[in-house]
Amino acid sequence: MTIGTSPALDTALAYHHAWTTGDFERAMTYIADDIVCDTPAGRIHGTEAFRGFMGPFVQILVKASPIAAFGDETTALLMYDTETVPVSSAPGAECLTVHDGRISHLRIIFDRAPFDAAQARAAS
Amino acid sequence: MTIGTSPALDTALAYHHAWTTGDFERAMTYIADDIVCDTPAGRIHGTEAFRGFMGPFVQILVKASPIAAFGDETTALLMYDTETVPVSSAPGAECLTVHDGRISHLRIIFDRAPFDAAQARAAS
Repeated sequence: MTIGTSPALDTALAYHHAWTTGDFERAMTYIADDIVCDTPAGRIHGTEAFRGFMGPFVQILVKASPIAAFGDETTALLMYDTETVPVSSAPGAECLTVHDGRISHLRIIFDRAPFDAAQARAAS
Repeated sequence: MTIGTSPALDTALAYHHAWTTGDFERAMTYIADDIVCDTPAGRIHGTEAFRGFMGPFVQILVKASPIAAFGDETTALLMYDTETVPVSSAPGAECLTVHDGRISHLRIIFDRAPFDAAQARAAS
């Protein structure tokens, strides 16, 4: 794992630590009210939509392991692996824009295919 | 886009520039013979397998746009968007380990779901 230090990275890692250790409410304190989040399924706006996106994922999270993390004044870039209830290895990457200690934009990339497959298995 | 400078990032960006501008053979010169690559579908080993993985993607690439890029001595972390023939926006993230100017490990994250959906549409 690679860790540098930067204002944006500090906030991104605090947010990351909170949601990956079961403290989703603390994680939400780092999210700007008007957050714009680009997810694999499309763009969502605002904390309520963001909570609806990340909340269910936190519920199925078993553990997260950092892979790499970098940042500068306003941008942080993270990659990590996660173990979840339906998918044993579900790595993700996030590019976060941070202003005044809060995340105003977050782009998250992960592979939906194994989650779709797990859902199809569960439904069959 | 955020660009820092580092030995690993220099190599990662040279590799990235080559494959995203149609010079796949030049891109391959940055790949170590014994590369280990973690893809959404699993781990592959060696340049032949890597060529089999990235080659077909390069063929369907229309353009790539950088989102963020950071690195240090041995690690680079990139995020970018791509436009491809079957999928109009297919962002990806890569964590690359670089030794002596060649990429020895590459983990790539992207969402296979829209590619699976496009394939299913094409087959129906």
